[in-house]
Amino acid sequence: MNKYLKPHLRALFDPEGIAIIGASPDHKKIGGRPLSYLQRYGFEGVIYPINPKYEEMNGLKCYPDIKMVEEQVDLAIIAVPKTAVLETFKKCAERKVRSVVIFSAGFAEVDEEGKKLQEQISLIAKQNNVNVLGPNCLGMFNVRKGVYGTFSTIIENEKPLQSNIGFVSQSGAFGSHVFTLARQRNIGFSSFVATGNESDVDVADCIEYLAQDPSTDVIACYIEGTKDGEKLIDAFRTARKNNKPVIALKVGRTNVGKKAALSHTGSLVGSDEVFDTVFKQNGVYRAETIEEFLDVVYATSKLPFPKDNNAAVFTISGGVGIMLADQLAVNGFTLPETPDDVKKKLRKILPIAGVQNPIDTTAQISYIPTLLEDFMDSVLSSGQYGSALVFLGFAGLKLDSLKARIETLVKLKERYPEIPQIVVTITNETSRQMFSDAGLIVIDDPSRAVKVAKALQYFGQGEIDEVHDIYDFSKEDVFGHSQALTEYGSKNILKQFGIPITQEKLAVTPQQAIQYANEIGYPVVLKGMSPQILHKTDKGLVFLNLKDSEEVLEKYHLLKSIIESTEGAEFEGVLVQELLKEDSVEMVIGSKKDPIFGQIVMVGLGGIYIEVLKDVAMRKAPVSVNEAKNMIYELKASPILQSYRGKPPYDIEKLSLLISQFSHFIIAQGEKLVEVDLNPVMVFAKGKGIKVADGLMTLEKRMIHS
Amino acid sequence: MNKYLKPHLRALFDPEGIAIIGASPDHKKIGGRPLSYLQRYGFEGVIYPINPKYEEMNGLKCYPDIKMVEEQVDLAIIAVPKTAVLETFKKCAERKVRSVVIFSAGFAEVDEEGKKLQEQISLIAKQNNVNVLGPNCLGMFNVRKGVYGTFSTIIENEKPLQSNIGFVSQSGAFGSHVFTLARQRNIGFSSFVATGNESDVDVADCIEYLAQDPSTDVIACYIEGTKDGEKLIDAFRTARKNNKPVIALKVGRTNVGKKAALSHTGSLVGSDEVFDTVFKQNGVYRAETIEEFLDVVYATSKLPFPKDNNAAVFTISGGVGIMLADQLAVNGFTLPETPDDVKKKLRKILPIAGVQNPIDTTAQISYIPTLLEDFMDSVLSSGQYGSALVFLGFAGLKLDSLKARIETLVKLKERYPEIPQIVVTITNETSRQMFSDAGLIVIDDPSRAVKVAKALQYFGQGEIDEVHDIYDFSKEDVFGHSQALTEYGSKNILKQFGIPITQEKLAVTPQQAIQYANEIGYPVVLKGMSPQILHKTDKGLVFLNLKDSEEVLEKYHLLKSIIESTEGAEFEGVLVQELLKEDSVEMVIGSKKDPIFGQIVMVGLGGIYIEVLKDVAMRKAPVSVNEAKNMIYELKASPILQSYRGKPPYDIEKLSLLISQFSHFIIAQGEKLVEVDLNPVMVFAKGKGIKVADGLMTLEKRMIHS
Repeated sequence: MNKYLKPHLRALFDPEGIAIIGASPDHKKIGGRPLSYLQRYGFEGVIYPINPKYEEMNGLKCYPDIKMVEEQVDLAIIAVPKTAVLETFKKCAERKVRSVVIFSAGFAEVDEEGKKLQEQISLIAKQNNVNVLGPNCLGMFNVRKGVYGTFSTIIENEKPLQSNIGFVSQSGAFGSHVFTLARQRNIGFSSFVATGNESDVDVADCIEYLAQDPSTDVIACYIEGTKDGEKLIDAFRTARKNNKPVIALKVGRTNVGKKAALSHTGSLVGSDEVFDTVFKQNGVYRAETIEEFLDVVYATSKLPFPKDNNAAVFTISGGVGIMLADQLAVNGFTLPETPDDVKKKLRKILPIAGVQNPIDTTAQISYIPTLLEDFMDSVLSSGQYGSALVFLGFAGLKLDSLKARIETLVKLKERYPEIPQIVVTITNETSRQMFSDAGLIVIDDPSRAVKVAKALQYFGQGEIDEVHDIYDFSKEDVFGHSQALTEYGSKNILKQFGIPITQEKLAVTPQQAIQYANEIGYPVVLKGMSPQILHKTDKGLVFLNLKDSEEVLEKYHLLKSIIESTEGAEFEGVLVQELLKEDSVEMVIGSKKDPIFGQIVMVGLGGIYIEVLKDVAMRKAPVSVNEAKNMIYELKASPILQSYRGKPPYDIEKLSLLISQFSHFIIAQGEKLVEVDLNPVMVFAKGKGIKVADGLMTLEKRMIHS
Repeated sequence: MNKYLKPHLRALFDPEGIAIIGASPDHKKIGGRPLSYLQRYGFEGVIYPINPKYEEMNGLKCYPDIKMVEEQVDLAIIAVPKTAVLETFKKCAERKVRSVVIFSAGFAEVDEEGKKLQEQISLIAKQNNVNVLGPNCLGMFNVRKGVYGTFSTIIENEKPLQSNIGFVSQSGAFGSHVFTLARQRNIGFSSFVATGNESDVDVADCIEYLAQDPSTDVIACYIEGTKDGEKLIDAFRTARKNNKPVIALKVGRTNVGKKAALSHTGSLVGSDEVFDTVFKQNGVYRAETIEEFLDVVYATSKLPFPKDNNAAVFTISGGVGIMLADQLAVNGFTLPETPDDVKKKLRKILPIAGVQNPIDTTAQISYIPTLLEDFMDSVLSSGQYGSALVFLGFAGLKLDSLKARIETLVKLKERYPEIPQIVVTITNETSRQMFSDAGLIVIDDPSRAVKVAKALQYFGQGEIDEVHDIYDFSKEDVFGHSQALTEYGSKNILKQFGIPITQEKLAVTPQQAIQYANEIGYPVVLKGMSPQILHKTDKGLVFLNLKDSEEVLEKYHLLKSIIESTEGAEFEGVLVQELLKEDSVEMVIGSKKDPIFGQIVMVGLGGIYIEVLKDVAMRKAPVSVNEAKNMIYELKASPILQSYRGKPPYDIEKLSLLISQFSHFIIAQGEKLVEVDLNPVMVFAKGKGIKVADGLMTLEKRMIHS
C-alpha cells in the first residue's frame, strides 16, 4: 500500500454508519438531500440523522447531537451553516468519527478569515486522524454501496447508473456537468467525488483510493492544480501498477487560463508544460475537451487496448473514409493496405466496393444484410489490424434496421475480443440505449472516434520509463560554501562526477595562464571568472582563438582589469581552456525546479532553436538513458543530430548518457540547485563523445552562517 | 456576373417545368421519390412524369417520351438504368431541356468504359448547352421553391427545414450524413446539392450559383478535389464580394488520406497545403471535423461577426471558465479584465461571484432570476467586448427554468445585436427546439463554442489581399531558346526586371575572369556554369574568397576542366561574383506550379529552417507587398529577422517587395516556369536592402523546333 494513502478513505467511500449533521426531512434542503438519496438509492448501513429539532426523521431515530450516537460512525456529513462548522467538526473529531464531508462554503475560497478557519479544520483533522472532504464541496457518492454524501441535484430524479469508472473532480460544477453529459449517454460511474477546498483529502488521495477500489477499472479526473506533486505522481503510479487507465482533464494551460485558475481556486498552479510531461511519464492520458474526456473515459471502460497502431476503417461514405484516414494518420496510425486475398474476397462480395483500406461498403450495406459482417470478418481475420473504426452514417437513427446492425457488431466483437471496435453513427436516446444494452460503445462523430482510438493506442503502447540507471551523485557538500558558482566552479563539480568537460585550468597569475596554455596547446580560450558576473560575453570576458603566450599574457591582464573595475565583482581567476575545433552540434541541457513537481530536466539545440523556436524536450528527473534518447528524438530539430545532408551522425549515445546522468545529479543535489544551464554542450561525431563547454549553476540562497 | 457561371444553373435550382424520366408511382423507387417529394413538399411548377407504361401517374398526365412534352422543360431528372442513360440524355439535349440531373451510377467511378460514356455526356452537354448534374449523383433540392431533384431517403419522412444555408457536397453519402445531423439540431438549408461525378456541373459552379442566390446567406461545402482551381477561386470571390461566408470541409490532408481520395473519386487532388492557402487567401473558413463544420455553418447563419478579438466569458462553473479562457487564448482571443466600475457593480449584485473575466456567476444563477441579465448587461454595456460566450452547464435540460433563461438571452441579443453571443449548454430535442424557436444558437460543448467564436472572428476580421501592385514582368521571350537556365542565366533574367542580384560577370576566357575580378574587387567568388550541372556545390564548382588574380586564374582552369570532364555537360563560362561580407540573413524564395491552382510563391529561412523544420510560408501568386510581409511574419523563425538578441533588424521592407515582385514575375512568365529557387537571398540590415546570391529556374520542356 502506498505511503500516501489516507487511513480513512475507505470509511469515506464505503462507510457502514453515516451521520448527517443538520439532517432535514425536506429533500429539497441541503441537509435533506443526502438523507433522501441514502434512503431511496439503497444504502444498506445505518443512518444517524442529527438535528435537535426532531426525535424521528423519515422513519429513523434522530439524534440531537453527534455525541449522542453510541455506535461507530464512519462518515459524518456536515450540512450546517458556516458559523457552526468548526464547532461541529470538533465534536466529530472528539467522537472519533473517521471521515467527514463538509458541504458548507465560505472558507479559503472567500477571504482571509475563511482561510484561517479552514486551516484550523486541517489541523484538527491531522491531530485526530480524521479524513475530511471539503469544505465548500459538493461531496461524493459510491453507486454500488449506495453511499450518498452529497447535496447535488444531479441525481435527484433518478439513481445514478453504475459502471467501472471512478470520477474525481476538483470542481463541483464541472463534475456535475460531466455527470449529466454522461447520464445522457447512459454512462455511469463507480464513485463520484468533488474535492472542493481540499483542506485534507485532495484529488491525489481520491485517485489513490480509486486505484485500489475493486469496483473501479478506469479513473477520470479533473484537475486545476495540486500542492503536492509527488503525491499525485504516486497515485498515478498506483493506478498504473493496477492496470487502471487514468484520463485527466487539466485546465490552466495558457497564462490567461492560469490567471483564471488562480482566482478560482487559490491553489498553486505550477507550469502546465510540467504537468503535461508528468502525465506522459506516468501514462496518464490528457484530454483537451470535455467531449474528448468523456469519450475516452467511456471507451476505455469497455474496450481492449490495441496490439499495434494498424487501423482498419470500414465506412459507408468514401468521403468520411478519407477524413478518417487523414485524421488517423495525423494521430500516429498507419492504415495498412487490405491484403490481396482479402481484396479479392471483398470484390467477390461487392464488385463496386472500395476494397482498399479505408474500406468503403457503400450504401449497399442497407440492402445486403450480411455485407457488414462479411466485410469486417474477412478483413479482421487477416490479423493485420490492431483497431477497427466502423462508420455507419445515420444508421443509429434508423431504428428498424438498427437491431440487425447491432447483432452483427456484437458478433464481431465476440469473435475479435482483442480488437477495439469503435462504432460511429448518429444516435438518439433510443439507439444509445440499444448500443449500451448490447455492450457496444458508440461515438456520434468520426473525428471524436479517432481521438478515442488514439487514447486506446496510448494506453496499449505506453511503457513507463523505469529508471534503473544508478549513478552516485550524492557526495556531501559538493557546493562548499559558495553562494554562486562560476563556469569553473560549476564544471569542476560536474567533472568530479565523471561528466566530460573541456580541458581547462584556472589561472590566478599571468605565469600560470601561460603555463596552462602551453600544457593545453594553442590556440586556447581565455575567460574571466567572477562569481558576481554570470553573463561573461556581455561583459567582454571571453577571448577565443588565442595563438601564443603573448596574446595570453595580454588578455589575462585585460580580463583581470575588467573584473576588478566592475563594482562588487570578485576576481576568481582566468580560465584557460582548449579551443574545440572538431565538427560538433551545440546543445543546451538544463534543469529547473518546478514549485510542484521538483527537478525538471530539459534539452534542446543551442541558440535560435531554444530561444526563438522553443524547441525543447523536458521530463521530470530522473530519466533513464533510453528516455533521454526519446527526449532527443522528440526535438523538431533532431534530424540535425542524425545523418542530415549526408553528414555523419553525431554522438547521440553519449548525449543520452549525459542527460540521464545530469538528471540524476540534479535529483541527488536537488535541495540546493535552483537552476543549471549547460550551454553549450558540444556533441561530436558518433563515437567521439561530448564535452560540456560552459555551465552555470544557481544555488538556493543559504543562511550566511551555515 | 462571373465569367464562369454556368448558363442554366438557375434552370437546375429553380425550374418551372420538371420532367422525371423513369418516373414511378411507387415512392420507394428511385424514379418515384422525386415525384413524391415534388408533390408532397409544395413544388408550384409543372411536373411531367415520363414512363411509357403509364398514361397517368399520381394525378398527373404521364408521357411515353420526353419528346412528347411540348412545353418548356427546365429540368429533366434521369432515373433510368445505366444502359439507357446516354440515349435518354441525347433526347433531352435534342429537346432543348436546359438542365439535367443524372442519378444513375456506373460511369467514371467504376471503369474505363464508364469513363468513356461519361465523357460522351460531357461533350453532348457542352455542344448543346445543357447543364448536367451527375451522373452517379444523389441530386439536389431547393427548399423554398419545393424543387426536389433527388432520390435521397434523408427527406422521406418530413419536408426539410428551410434556412439561409446553401450546402454543396462532392459526396452524396457525406452530404446525407451532415443533412441528418443538421436536422437533429433543427438546422435547415436553402438548397442542398451533391455533385457526384461532375461530368459538367461541379462544386465551384454550385458555389458560384449559391453566391448569387438571394435565398442563401452562408455557403457550406464539402470538397475532395477540383480540376479547375481558378474557377473555384472565382466562386469563392463571388461569395466574398456578396458577403456570404464560405465554410469548407476538405478531406485528403495527409498522404494516406490523399491516396484514399484518389481511389474514391478519381479526381485530381493537388497539394493540400495549397488548398489551405487558397482558402485563407479567399476568406474561406476551413473546418477540420464534421462537428466543427456544422457548428460554424449554423452559427454563421445566425450571428453577427465580432468587431474585435476581445471576448467576455460568463460561466456557472469556474472550471469551465478556465478551460474557455485557455482555449480562447490559444485561438487568438484576448480576455480583457472586467472594467473596475463593472466589477464593483457585479460584486454588489453577488459578493461571491468571480468578477474577473471569465466571469463566474456561480450556481446562484439558479436562485437569483435577474442575475444572468444583470451580469451580462453590466459587462457588455462597457463596450469592451466583441464576443460573448455564455456557459450554462445543463440548464438546457432543466426545461422548467429554461424558458426564463431563454427570455433573458433573447433580451440581451436584442440589446446588443452587434455582439455574437454563443450559448453553451447540454440540450435535448425539446430544448433545442426552444432555442431554435427563440432564434438563439446553442452549442453543447464549450470547446466547440470556442471554435465557433474563432470562425466568426475569422469572418469578421478577414480582409482579402487586394493586389494592386503592378510590375511589368511580361516581356516577350525572356527565356530565349534555353531549355535549362544556369545561375547566370536565371539571375540575368531577374536583373532585367530590376531585381537586385550580386554583382557578377560571366567570363569565358581566363583573361576575362581576371579582368572582371579586378573590376569587382577582391576577394571574389568563382562558380563554374553549365546548363547540365544544376547542383554546383556537389560537383565542386564553387570557390569562395579568392584573394588575387593568381587564385582566379588557377580556379578558372580548374572549373573549366571539371565541367569539360563531366559527361554531357556544356561549358557556359565561369561566373565571377562579389563576395558578400556584410551581416545578413539567408532566405529562400521559391515558386512551384501546383497542378490545380498554378503558380505558388514560397518563402523561408535558408538551410535547416526549410529542410528540417519545414518552416515555410506559401501563397498563390501574386501577392501584394503587404501580404508578402504577412508571409514573413508567419514564419516561426521570423524573430531572427527582427531585433533578435539585441541585433539591429534586417530589411524586411525590401524582402517583402522582392517577394511581391517575384510573385508577379512567376505569374507573368508562369506558362514556361515549372519551378524557381532563389537560394540564398541575402537580407541585409534594415535600409541596406537585399541581394539574390544564387538562383535556378526550371523551365517546361519545349518542342525542339520551337
